[in-house]
Amino acid sequence: MPLVNVKVIEGVFTPAQKQEMIRKLTDAMVSIEGENMRSVTSVIIDEVKSGDWGIGGKPLTTADVKSLAAGKPKG
Amino acid sequence: MPLVNVKVIEGVFTPAQKQEMIRKLTDAMVSIEGENMRSVTSVIIDEVKSGDWGIGGKPLTTADVKSLAAGKPKG
Amino acid sequence: MPLVNVKVIEGVFTPAQKQEMIRKLTDAMVSIEGENMRSVTSVIIDEVKSGDWGIGGKPLTTADVKSLAAGKPKG
Amino acid sequence: MPLVNVKVIEGVFTPAQKQEMIRKLTDAMVSIEGENMRSVTSVIIDEVKSGDWGIGGKPLTTADVKSLAAGKPKG
Amino acid sequence: MPLVNVKVIEGVFTPAQKQEMIRKLTDAMVSIEGENMRSVTSVIIDEVKSGDWGIGGKPLTTADVKSLAAGKPKG
Amino acid sequence: MPLVNVKVIEGVFTPAQKQEMIRKLTDAMVSIEGENMRSVTSVIIDEVKSGDWGIGGKPLTTADVKSLAAGKPKG
Repeated sequence: MPLVNVKVIEGVFTPAQKQEMIRKLTDAMVSIEGENMRSVTSVIIDEVKSGDWGIGGKPLTTADVKSLAAGKPKG
Repeated sequence: MPLVNVKVIEGVFTPAQKQEMIRKLTDAMVSIEGENMRSVTSVIIDEVKSGDWGIGGKPLTTADVKSLAAGKPKG
Repeated sequence: MPLVNVKVIEGVFTPAQKQEMIRKLTDAMVSIEGENMRSVTSVIIDEVKSGDWGIGGKPLTTADVKSLAAGKPKG
Repeated sequence: MPLVNVKVIEGVFTPAQKQEMIRKLTDAMVSIEGENMRSVTSVIIDEVKSGDWGIGGKPLTTADVKSLAAGKPKG
Repeated sequence: MPLVNVKVIEGVFTPAQKQEMIRKLTDAMVSIEGENMRSVTSVIIDEVKSGDWGIGGKPLTTADVKSLAAGKPKG
Repeated sequence: MPLVNVKVIEGVFTPAQKQEMIRKLTDAMVSIEGENMRSVTSVIIDEVKSGDWGIGGKPLTTADVKSLAAGKPKG
C-alpha cells in the first residue's frame, strides 16, 4: 500500500541516482512497516521542468539546484 | 468536482488509448455520481519516465510493463 | 502500475459508492490495459473538506455538490 | 510550509508567464499567511501533455485551451 | 483547465482564510491566463495532519507553523 | 527542493512511526543528493481513509494492511 511520490527538478539526478532513490526510499519504508510490505510499496519519481519550481516566489533552475547541492551560493 | 488523476509510465498507452481512458473513467464516475455531474468531472493523465516507477524497490521500464501486460515474466 | 487517484468532496459519496468507484475505475482501466494488469492497478480516493474546493474562485460545499448532482441550481 | 502545486497543459503558458505565476501565487499566499512564511512557501508547476486532460470525457488540447482563453468556441 | 492544489497543515488557516485563499489564487491565475479561463480554474486545499509534514527531517506541528508565522523561533 | 509525498492508510502507523518515516526518508534522500540539500528536503504524509484504497478493484481497510504486515492472509 504505501506510495512514495517524489518530485525533483529534471536533470538534477542521473538515471542511476534515481534507481538508488527508488531502492533506498523503499528500504526506509520497509524498515518501519516490515518486510511483508515490500512487494506492495511503490515509489514514483516525477520530474518538474527547470524553472517550474519556485521557493519564496523565485524560480529554481536545474543549475541553481546543482549549485546549492555543491554548497555554492545561488547566482 | 470529481478529479481523476491517473499516473502511468510513458509509452505504455497510445494517444488513442489515453482518449479512451479519459472517456471510460469519466463514464465510470458518471454512472455513480449521476449525469448532472459529467460536465464538472475531470480526468488528468500524468506520464512518468520509464524506470522512474518502482515496485518493491525495483524500477519498472516501459518494456517491463508491456511484458507484464502481455503475460510474459519480467526480465 | 497504473495509479488512479480520485479527489472528491467529503460526504458526497457513501462508503458503498466509494467501493463501487474503486471497482468501476479499476474495470475501466483493465478494459484498456488488459486483464494481466488488474493486480497492479490501484485506486486511491482522497476526500477534501467541504468548502475547500473552489471553481472560478467560489468555494463548493458538500451541499452544493449534492444540489448540483440533483440538478438543482446552486444557492 | 504551504505548497502550491499547479497543473496546466503544456505549451499554454510561456516560461515568462510561468515565472509570473510562481511570483503571483506566492504573493497571494503571503498576503494571507504573512510575510514570515514567504521563504517556506513553494510553488510547483506540472505540465500535462496536450490531449491528456479531459473535461466531461472530452480531451483538451493545447489549441483548445488557447481558443478558450481567446474567447473562441471550441472546435 | 488550470488546477491549483494547495497543501497546508490543518488548523493553521481558518475557514474564512481558506475561502480568501481560493479567491486570491484564482485571481492570480486569471490575471495571467485571462478572464475567459476563470470558470475552468479550480483550487483544491488539502490539509495534512499536524506533525505529518517534515522539513529537513524535522516534523512541523500546527503550533510550529503558527510560531513561524508570528516571527517566533521554533521550540 | 526535493519533495517526498507519502500516502498511507490511516491508523496503520503511529505518530512515532510517522516521525521515524519523515526522518528516514529525508536521510535516504540526503544520502543521494548530499548534506547541503537537507534543509530544502520536505516529506509530507497523507492519510487515506480505511477502505478508500483499492488494489485490483478490492478495497483495503486498515485491518487488511495490518494483517498483511503481520504476514497473515487477507480475510
